[in-house]
Amino acid sequence: MAVTRRTSRDIRSESRLDVLHALLAAGEASRGDLAAETGLSNATVATVVSDLLEGGIVTEARRTGGRIGRPTTTLRLNGNRGRIVGVDVAETYVRATVFDSALDELASAEVATDEHHDEYDYVIDGIVRALDASLENAHADRDDVLGVGISLPGGMQRWTEVSVVVPNAPWLHVDRLRERIGLPMVVDNPLKAIATAELWFGAGRRHKSMITVNLGTGVGAGIVLEGTILRGAQNGAGEWGHSLLALDGRGCRCGRKGCVEAYVGAAGIQQTLAAIAPEHPLASVPMQREFIGALAAALEPPAHPALTETLELTARYLGSAIADLCAIVNPEMITLTGWTAWALGDHLIPAVRRRVLEEAPGDSAADLAIEVSTVRGNSVATGIATIALERFLGDVGLVTTRVPTAI
Amino acid sequence: MAVTRRTSRDIRSESRLDVLHALLAAGEASRGDLAAETGLSNATVATVVSDLLEGGIVTEARRTGGRIGRPTTTLRLNGNRGRIVGVDVAETYVRATVFDSALDELASAEVATDEHHDEYDYVIDGIVRALDASLENAHADRDDVLGVGISLPGGMQRWTEVSVVVPNAPWLHVDRLRERIGLPMVVDNPLKAIATAELWFGAGRRHKSMITVNLGTGVGAGIVLEGTILRGAQNGAGEWGHSLLALDGRGCRCGRKGCVEAYVGAAGIQQTLAAIAPEHPLASVPMQREFIGALAAALEPPAHPALTETLELTARYLGSAIADLCAIVNPEMITLTGWTAWALGDHLIPAVRRRVLEEAPGDSAADLAIEVSTVRGNSVATGIATIALERFLGDVGLVTTRVPTAI
Repeated sequence: MAVTRRTSRDIRSESRLDVLHALLAAGEASRGDLAAETGLSNATVATVVSDLLEGGIVTEARRTGGRIGRPTTTLRLNGNRGRIVGVDVAETYVRATVFDSALDELASAEVATDEHHDEYDYVIDGIVRALDASLENAHADRDDVLGVGISLPGGMQRWTEVSVVVPNAPWLHVDRLRERIGLPMVVDNPLKAIATAELWFGAGRRHKSMITVNLGTGVGAGIVLEGTILRGAQNGAGEWGHSLLALDGRGCRCGRKGCVEAYVGAAGIQQTLAAIAPEHPLASVPMQREFIGALAAALEPPAHPALTETLELTARYLGSAIADLCAIVNPEMITLTGWTAWALGDHLIPAVRRRVLEEAPGDSAADLAIEVSTVRGNSVATGIATIALERFLGDVGLVTTRVPTAI
Repeated sequence: MAVTRRTSRDIRSESRLDVLHALLAAGEASRGDLAAETGLSNATVATVVSDLLEGGIVTEARRTGGRIGRPTTTLRLNGNRGRIVGVDVAETYVRATVFDSALDELASAEVATDEHHDEYDYVIDGIVRALDASLENAHADRDDVLGVGISLPGGMQRWTEVSVVVPNAPWLHVDRLRERIGLPMVVDNPLKAIATAELWFGAGRRHKSMITVNLGTGVGAGIVLEGTILRGAQNGAGEWGHSLLALDGRGCRCGRKGCVEAYVGAAGIQQTLAAIAPEHPLASVPMQREFIGALAAALEPPAHPALTETLELTARYLGSAIADLCAIVNPEMITLTGWTAWALGDHLIPAVRRRVLEEAPGDSAADLAIEVSTVRGNSVATGIATIALERFLGDVGLVTTRVPTAI
């Protein structure tokens, strides 16, 4: 069997992650609270907390004394253990966000990049500049940095010809990147980052099988099964945005025809409007994010019928495509994230939910929750920083990563 | 966290399953062979084998003595431990197959059922009659039966109005079934059965992430991730046959429009031919299985251009739909199973492979193997019998089933 074998070391590692997740959710908690929340025994929690205290990952917060019984020490994540940086490399910008070791955001910096200028040295320059600027903004020293997580749109490498990670030769350029960064580094793709953010900070804490649907320029799905991110054979799982909605349908920027992204990506939504009402001013807004913002604002009643129809069609497309996820994966919950979801999610969700119920096979959507993600801010940066923190926890021997991150 | 916690008991259980899988593959093996094959230590293999010998699951086969060194005892599965029955409930028949406890097929019996007559008492009658007849054919006593596995097309319950397991009230009729069967029983759906068969007998032994695509009247996918069958929230994962190939496309018997099954199910393939050449005699063959057999035979050169075109279109549809599985799940391997796959697989696979490579995102299909499954015979019956054996191993305390079977 090629299956990775679990050891008692893995079990200890999982217990530590469970305690960390619970602590992150609670902010501050006693050992008793943590045992109640995680289902671990008091003895296991005591051992785990002792390991985490020794590693400087958690810290004792304060003692509370009630009128009855002995005082209780509460615990929290130790924000002073060091700094973690999450870097979101997108088509038109590189944004680096500095977090403390309790994953609270401290500062960030953005470097605009030209999407037509995508040689890897250029992209690596942008990453290094954003990283340095973010550390400066956070008044952080490079020596304080426990890890840097970099989200590269790797799944798109072949299509967009971004050559940061060239097909079949990823190590070359990642080594170059590692050399330029000069800090402990982990690279992964944005779908795995948003799934991680959802797992640590969002619905993933309550649902063991869950999908986070990202709606923006690109469209994709972060899939969490049994508490673990689905990566697939080439770390390529979740590219649902490039699965078919309609055979021989609209051309997609990936080269395929009829992809989900071509209908529910920001450009796809604008294309739907342009087909209904080519003369509508919103149909020609040049920037996608601006278009989505303006569309959301214009949907307040009384809305132009072309906009209402655009929204209805978009909900229909999105609902059909989510029904396919129900058919294939049958998750407990779906969250929507990304700037299109934040702007249009509340408008879309009721009609999406109806469509999913109509279209998903059998009972597979009967108990499905569909909600806008509660993880806000740059969830790619938060997620990739969390992956970097996981990697740091692995480096200091507190966590065994069974499913390795990409690089 | 809602995630099921692993214990050292689970680890022992996994070791036992690994040894059983290895033994099943080898037929006969020494403890040393098993250690080499599974990667377990000699000490662990010795303990596991001792447990399995004590439970009567394996037996010592013979001692081999070379000229050098001490004689070696080989082991094999103990076929005389008892009998396992796998029951495949399909639309038009119920087929029960009796296996010995080494999962070798002994005998089977089939009862024709009328697909228009689907009250649950009628279907339960068919199951009981097939079971009794199969035991008689195998000269097996009910007391010898360790377990009965029953594959019910549960995912289709709502659509076809088969009321064996009615929506939201499955326990009622399963209890009735259990009472009528009067033997240890497990119920699951056919996609989980074929995935189990692939996991124990086919490509699942070599690939930790793998999808078995079933092509027949119905179309579906048995998905294995990290050596575990993907079940999903309502045991509904794998209904890829009812995910979209084409929005607003061909009507599917499930009620949705444009499902994969409507294009690559046996009826869908015939519909493709009828659209190309309505007058072709094969377009009006009434029985689906007969149509597929005749099509395969007629594809030997020189084939009628309408048939070649039908095959090309079918490969295109199937390749696009498999590319969607690559996009979403990114498996290492895909096997095709079911009578359509056995008849047409070799004709289809080269063109399917090309289409998948063209259509799957990025590198996700670059290393993907696509093959006809090596599990032949009734893989639903074999798989559901294997699930019943797993359940029996659980009942005698040898295996902990982390992901429970449906009922």
